[in-house]
Amino acid sequence: MVNKRGFASDNNAGVHPFILDAMASVNDGHVIAYGDDPYTEKAIRDIRQHLGQEAGVFFVFIGTAANVLGLSSATRSHHAVICPETAHIHVDECGAPEKFTGCKLLTSETPDGKLTLDLIARHMHGIGFEHHVQPRVVSITQATELGTVYSIEEIRTLADYAHEQGMFLHMDGARISNAVVSLDCDLYEMTAGAGVDILSFGGTKNGMMYGEAVVFFDPNLAADFKYRRKQGMQLSSKMRYIAAQFSAFLEKDLWKKNARHANRMAQKLYLAVKDIPGVRVTQKVEANAVFACIPPAVIAQLQQEYFFYVWDEDSSEVRWMCSFDTTEADIEGFARLLTTMLVN
Amino acid sequence: MVNKRGFASDNNAGVHPFILDAMASVNDGHVIAYGDDPYTEKAIRDIRQHLGQEAGVFFVFIGTAANVLGLSSATRSHHAVICPETAHIHVDECGAPEKFTGCKLLTSETPDGKLTLDLIARHMHGIGFEHHVQPRVVSITQATELGTVYSIEEIRTLADYAHEQGMFLHMDGARISNAVVSLDCDLYEMTAGAGVDILSFGGTKNGMMYGEAVVFFDPNLAADFKYRRKQGMQLSSKMRYIAAQFSAFLEKDLWKKNARHANRMAQKLYLAVKDIPGVRVTQKVEANAVFACIPPAVIAQLQQEYFFYVWDEDSSEVRWMCSFDTTEADIEGFARLLTTMLVN
Amino acid sequence: MVNKRGFASDNNAGVHPFILDAMASVNDGHVIAYGDDPYTEKAIRDIRQHLGQEAGVFFVFIGTAANVLGLSSATRSHHAVICPETAHIHVDECGAPEKFTGCKLLTSETPDGKLTLDLIARHMHGIGFEHHVQPRVVSITQATELGTVYSIEEIRTLADYAHEQGMFLHMDGARISNAVVSLDCDLYEMTAGAGVDILSFGGTKNGMMYGEAVVFFDPNLAADFKYRRKQGMQLSSKMRYIAAQFSAFLEKDLWKKNARHANRMAQKLYLAVKDIPGVRVTQKVEANAVFACIPPAVIAQLQQEYFFYVWDEDSSEVRWMCSFDTTEADIEGFARLLTTMLVN
Amino acid sequence: MVNKRGFASDNNAGVHPFILDAMASVNDGHVIAYGDDPYTEKAIRDIRQHLGQEAGVFFVFIGTAANVLGLSSATRSHHAVICPETAHIHVDECGAPEKFTGCKLLTSETPDGKLTLDLIARHMHGIGFEHHVQPRVVSITQATELGTVYSIEEIRTLADYAHEQGMFLHMDGARISNAVVSLDCDLYEMTAGAGVDILSFGGTKNGMMYGEAVVFFDPNLAADFKYRRKQGMQLSSKMRYIAAQFSAFLEKDLWKKNARHANRMAQKLYLAVKDIPGVRVTQKVEANAVFACIPPAVIAQLQQEYFFYVWDEDSSEVRWMCSFDTTEADIEGFARLLTTMLVN
Repeated sequence: MVNKRGFASDNNAGVHPFILDAMASVNDGHVIAYGDDPYTEKAIRDIRQHLGQEAGVFFVFIGTAANVLGLSSATRSHHAVICPETAHIHVDECGAPEKFTGCKLLTSETPDGKLTLDLIARHMHGIGFEHHVQPRVVSITQATELGTVYSIEEIRTLADYAHEQGMFLHMDGARISNAVVSLDCDLYEMTAGAGVDILSFGGTKNGMMYGEAVVFFDPNLAADFKYRRKQGMQLSSKMRYIAAQFSAFLEKDLWKKNARHANRMAQKLYLAVKDIPGVRVTQKVEANAVFACIPPAVIAQLQQEYFFYVWDEDSSEVRWMCSFDTTEADIEGFARLLTTMLVN
Repeated sequence: MVNKRGFASDNNAGVHPFILDAMASVNDGHVIAYGDDPYTEKAIRDIRQHLGQEAGVFFVFIGTAANVLGLSSATRSHHAVICPETAHIHVDECGAPEKFTGCKLLTSETPDGKLTLDLIARHMHGIGFEHHVQPRVVSITQATELGTVYSIEEIRTLADYAHEQGMFLHMDGARISNAVVSLDCDLYEMTAGAGVDILSFGGTKNGMMYGEAVVFFDPNLAADFKYRRKQGMQLSSKMRYIAAQFSAFLEKDLWKKNARHANRMAQKLYLAVKDIPGVRVTQKVEANAVFACIPPAVIAQLQQEYFFYVWDEDSSEVRWMCSFDTTEADIEGFARLLTTMLVN
Repeated sequence: MVNKRGFASDNNAGVHPFILDAMASVNDGHVIAYGDDPYTEKAIRDIRQHLGQEAGVFFVFIGTAANVLGLSSATRSHHAVICPETAHIHVDECGAPEKFTGCKLLTSETPDGKLTLDLIARHMHGIGFEHHVQPRVVSITQATELGTVYSIEEIRTLADYAHEQGMFLHMDGARISNAVVSLDCDLYEMTAGAGVDILSFGGTKNGMMYGEAVVFFDPNLAADFKYRRKQGMQLSSKMRYIAAQFSAFLEKDLWKKNARHANRMAQKLYLAVKDIPGVRVTQKVEANAVFACIPPAVIAQLQQEYFFYVWDEDSSEVRWMCSFDTTEADIEGFARLLTTMLVN
Repeated sequence: MVNKRGFASDNNAGVHPFILDAMASVNDGHVIAYGDDPYTEKAIRDIRQHLGQEAGVFFVFIGTAANVLGLSSATRSHHAVICPETAHIHVDECGAPEKFTGCKLLTSETPDGKLTLDLIARHMHGIGFEHHVQPRVVSITQATELGTVYSIEEIRTLADYAHEQGMFLHMDGARISNAVVSLDCDLYEMTAGAGVDILSFGGTKNGMMYGEAVVFFDPNLAADFKYRRKQGMQLSSKMRYIAAQFSAFLEKDLWKKNARHANRMAQKLYLAVKDIPGVRVTQKVEANAVFACIPPAVIAQLQQEYFFYVWDEDSSEVRWMCSFDTTEADIEGFARLLTTMLVN
């Protein structure tokens, strides 16, 4: 069976061969289950090379779990989490944050998926008033769900404000690799260095099979996380296979190479479609996504050749995601098809 | 690195090569994420070959999640789940059932890890009385945590009683393959055929890497499970790799071959140790585990050569698990060492 | 101690003497605790006189509990509740709905505290899509938190839409008495008759001491509510004292007399202040509240004489609530003071 | 209607007239709702006279809520609470502790409703092991559900052990007045003085109408309790009526007088029945309850005259509770009837 590539999502892609090989390479004999094994030890060490020797690093299965359990570590049920209305934790986790933490999410509309001080401040009332939930975490996504990227200064500003108010800054880094290469910075300065307290460090959208890391820069937050992970049904028995993926992901900059490629493909796609009549790109292309409004009439046929999702039915806005395995030919073929359909 | 095999747990083993190959074989191109792909469709079809065309089949990451989300489908928070005191859901899931379902577990001590009508009946009071939690599910483990196996008749008896009382029967089948080959029956007659309503169908302890299936024989229980799975943080984006494992697991009876081997190794181990002076086997060896009391003095040294766990410090009872990759030489070497240590 | 009346809230008032007498009158001898007593039976009968013989009626302690447990009866944790951004369940219950039900609240901004079909419809997407919470209940407050009142036709329209979509209509009736006298209708036609499925029937804001009734018009919703109430920590042992209050509340139309008085005082207040320079009334006065923007400079001094709350710091909007014991002299004195302060 | 007194429960009694009067006496004018009023301030002061100036005192509606919210303050969901199998929190709260805290209760069978070091120690394993829930609170009931009373030394022993293990000691004091008069000690030495960390201070079973106090002796536990109470649906708007009850309860030792009377009646009952042939008293009578096995044949008829509950059907054990309003004539009449029925 040959599965056609499209632009639906970076998690529609398969697994990078180097990672697959790494998984096979640890398949020898017995090691203690649940993470007390040398591969897991090494993977944690590898991540700490990037995120600091003090970082608390815990593997879970998926990004939703990384987000929810990370938030849970910083909250009690009467707290609230401030996030953009487009945040994955608000829109795409079927209420898992509320179910598991008990907390309310306080959302703000944004033009570009990014929180600002003003958007946070509108939720900062009723502090100390027992009838209201108490804001405790600010959660941002980097790169955002709209393909935009916070600058390090923007993150630092949010972190400083959060800390002044006794809050924590959480970063959903499902696409953090794409943000790192977009800003051409290193991982530490975008996270711990900019004041982030809790990081969901994702790899599945960038060539891994499964597995995500929750990283705490404040050891207090990590203190009883091992119980939270187990109770949160996220403790893998054969942990070595997640560990092997992360080590391979970080080795020889595979994570950056994959992300750089995906971002470059998005730029190419952007350039190829932005001037086609009827196409209006709606967001800055800073990572691996292109958002655009296109005529509703062409969507269905286009999807048949290159599958993708409609983001907003009302405005006929669509999302095109590039991934580590998107090819130049994919972009060219897609742009050619779109041109043909619209320029007639 | 060569990792030494021991008898600590069947999940200390790696992944069967046939399964690893199957995972690599689906690594081509893009498919729709979250299970809407042909591999997942096939794996569900493969499972239904064994468990009936009407079975609701849902993949999750681990056994704890399969148990918890399965129980959640049949309960509201004022319900209770009756289980043995040794049940994995009670002892080894860090309170995940309580956290996620809100339900109380009502436990009974058992000599062999198996519930009986009498042990259930002691919890059947206060029915309809609003101060008491209301029993709603009977949960059994097959094979049990003590390496014993319910006969089909025993399961049927519990199921009939549960149904008469308006309850459901849940089976934690983390080691169901071992039970099937132990009874030399087929999967259907031990589950749906015997009245089981909800099954956690496990493979990780028998050669898979990760992934477990929740199977509902009552379509009402499955009705909104897809939301529960997502909210329970158990929806894998790259589902094809779980699907590929299950298809490979069931193909050419790999699941039975692996289980038969593990059970046979446990029998061999049992025969090799049962008459060593100082060894007292404490449970029937019906699956892939041997439980025995041995002199405390020999435990530490023995563990250095072949790692295993102490089950009960007070009685110096230990657990030796065999797995799909245990070798005859492992058994022989272990028995020889134990003999040397004790017969002096 | 003489406590000065103000306009802070209708629950700053005491208890109507007739209700206090009724509580004392049932203080004789022993009756079975937890509601299995003749007073509770009578109170349920009294409520059914208004709400139908089939209504499921359950007493709880407070309005927050009535709302939360009522919503819980109609939902599982992956569901969502649609409500106005000003809803008590969203703003003033410290996240109790999320904590207890696990559900997300989907809110809409409104000009007047009232939901409309359009405001609901914007949340009706992703139906059947497992990544999204699933709308299950529409919750309205009658009279609203802004002192406005839904017409019976408006309620019926929302109920019909909800039912078409497989949802339920919940009514937070903390001030339902005020709405009933405002519309000059009977209780049934505004609730069950208009399609309401679950009602929080309040009395504390209208002369009772404590106690609220959850009323279900659909017997399926009531089926296991007694357990939910107990588990929700809302089952009073000495239930007779809640029952006595409700019977007294409904007897000789006390509930209507109290509400009519409070509404009339609000009208009087509205007429007395609306033309004072610097005062801008911001909401229709349809129940017992007056909302107005007034100059920030006068607020503190005014509060010293007649305590009330600022509703919105930014716009200097305040809320003045009238209650069953507000006197004409209170209104006159207040209006006189305000006039003096502003007309200089 | 004249309601006949029986021996079913101390909460089948009404409200002591002195308390009823106190409630009426605060029914004047407006005070700020939700506890920011002078009556509440006074009641807290009154309680602190007994329990220390540093005690954190919070009123809730019922004992179940006091227990659950108190436990919640000391736990996260992966913790466990150790209690006797007969504990109210385990048997009679419909799973509210599990639902609200997420914690597992670890129970021990006891002969007399009292925990001992041995009974606690059997749950102290798997500490630090992430698969197991982590014991965090020891919960005792004083007086116990079986009418027995812990000595101050016994409490101190349990508290010391709990503290050594990093755990807290919680006391369910639904009948704490009866224990205080039984031991002839003061409230402080039995609670804070003996090492108790969290106290549910009850009054409803001793002449109050509703309302219970959660008392924290460790200010850290109290830190965010006001939010927990609100989110736990236990914040009364018209708080003054709970406050008035507590002040009256403590004034002129009413709480002790009521409890002393109830205990004395239980002693009288015990003496009156203990030698009747066929009656076997099963527990020490140290508070206001008498437990006894009596012939099954006489139960139904006896209940018709004096209602009470069967505690254990199998052994025909019944519970007779005395309350503040039990009269000597009640005891005499009951003993006479029982004698007549049995001695023939």
